[in-house]
Amino acid sequence: MDTLQLALARNAEAIGGLLDRLQPARPGAQGRVVEAMRYAALNGGKRLRPFLTVESARLFGVPESYALRAGTALEMVHCYSLVHDDLPAMDDSDLRRGQPTVHIEFDEAVAILAGDGLLTEAFAVLADPETHPDPAIRAELIAGLAAAAGADGMVGGQMIDISPERNDLDLAGITELQSLKTGALITFACEAGAILGRASAAERQALVGFAQDLGLAFQIVDDLLDAEGSAAELGKPTGQDEAMGKATFVGQLGREGARQRAEEIVARAHAQLALFGERAELLCLAASFVLQRRS
Amino acid sequence: MDTLQLALARNAEAIGGLLDRLQPARPGAQGRVVEAMRYAALNGGKRLRPFLTVESARLFGVPESYALRAGTALEMVHCYSLVHDDLPAMDDSDLRRGQPTVHIEFDEAVAILAGDGLLTEAFAVLADPETHPDPAIRAELIAGLAAAAGADGMVGGQMIDISPERNDLDLAGITELQSLKTGALITFACEAGAILGRASAAERQALVGFAQDLGLAFQIVDDLLDAEGSAAELGKPTGQDEAMGKATFVGQLGREGARQRAEEIVARAHAQLALFGERAELLCLAASFVLQRRS
Repeated sequence: MDTLQLALARNAEAIGGLLDRLQPARPGAQGRVVEAMRYAALNGGKRLRPFLTVESARLFGVPESYALRAGTALEMVHCYSLVHDDLPAMDDSDLRRGQPTVHIEFDEAVAILAGDGLLTEAFAVLADPETHPDPAIRAELIAGLAAAAGADGMVGGQMIDISPERNDLDLAGITELQSLKTGALITFACEAGAILGRASAAERQALVGFAQDLGLAFQIVDDLLDAEGSAAELGKPTGQDEAMGKATFVGQLGREGARQRAEEIVARAHAQLALFGERAELLCLAASFVLQRRS
Repeated sequence: MDTLQLALARNAEAIGGLLDRLQPARPGAQGRVVEAMRYAALNGGKRLRPFLTVESARLFGVPESYALRAGTALEMVHCYSLVHDDLPAMDDSDLRRGQPTVHIEFDEAVAILAGDGLLTEAFAVLADPETHPDPAIRAELIAGLAAAAGADGMVGGQMIDISPERNDLDLAGITELQSLKTGALITFACEAGAILGRASAAERQALVGFAQDLGLAFQIVDDLLDAEGSAAELGKPTGQDEAMGKATFVGQLGREGARQRAEEIVARAHAQLALFGERAELLCLAASFVLQRRS
């Protein structure tokens, strides 16, 4: 395994462990929603968002236990959004990472509640003094997460994604959709590291710019994988965007153009981190990895 | 109008105004989810939870602007829970306060997202320095709200409420269900006032005990209204509990027994506030009002 793969694997294990401990199984009828929350969260994901939080926080010497908790809260929000996006009334997806989605494995009502529970628990984790001893830092993390996840962030992006106007978006519209639906949370993942580390305005802006670029490249590659990838590798059906007539980066730029654009954006992402020098190597590798991912 | 009605009306107007200002309408596809959030929140409710927060905070001389914001956040969580509970996969309700529910007025996907948006926004409101200048107070409010609303509170209660075991609950089971599904948030409404007011442990415990009793009496009367009330007064169908074979306080205690029990509990609620003397008059009137409500 190379440096990045090793760091990602270590981080994913730590995040999985925290997700497990923060939401332990419990008995009774009430336990069923917790079982679904655990099913949704303990899913073997790459844990890219927490990785970005942990590595951003590391630039400022933040204790890893703080960054891991903040990253875990972000991952809970990411997982909740997948559960709700997969619902029949939304994207109606039966498979996620090769496994039945939550409303298939449990039922629709449990999936709605499990999503609600994960979203709520994320804020409980951030509000806890174990995430940072300074309540001003905790409150800032919470304000930032709520802004990234709400109607002017992820929820707003999903609203655009399911709207009738969705299929007619131009390049600017697709970019705006991406910046809300997936970009806001990815950006906040790096910003959370800056908040934990009491970064200067310039350092924080560099991380935000880096994360915005990484998020955009991630989405372009997502469109490429949907157009080119195999369902077996992705763990979900491919060719969905074209079949549904969705406007995508690939549709706007062509496959070659989209790939080239993603490469340019990753190069720009690297440049944003210049002020951190070699300390930002893992973050730069993470941005490069986005170009190579197959799932 | 008597003293309580006047105070409730004034409070409802202030909360409605804040809900309106905190989540203004906006253009575009993204605006549709905000429109649904506003539809769900600006619904002419009694605003009982924010009233409890404001009146509890008043006992400690907390500036009303802080308590109103905290109360508004609670009301957002209450409104989100109604939107999700009404969904076809949950209670499948078409009417709420005499108006089409959110998934009827908009659609199911928008209703899911609007609920998600309201829940997220509630934490944004609490994290904002305008809610209280001390970030430790804000973090404590957030931790308390998340605990009351999550899998060990409201979400857990709703899970029990839709579980197959629901119809066979005994009195202890129904009481436990109530304490989670509606009691936790009502209790936190008073506790939030205590947090804002830096109450002593004894004062906080008195308010918590009062609110637990008020919440329990509220639910017993809810069961009585479903058994006895008219759909026109309630703005929703009645006789639902019996038709669905749900275990209720009325089913367990009989109508007369249930009413008597509610009266005893309200008397106990009043006694809990003795240490505040006459300053707690409006809170006591609110508990008495629960017995008289017709909707």
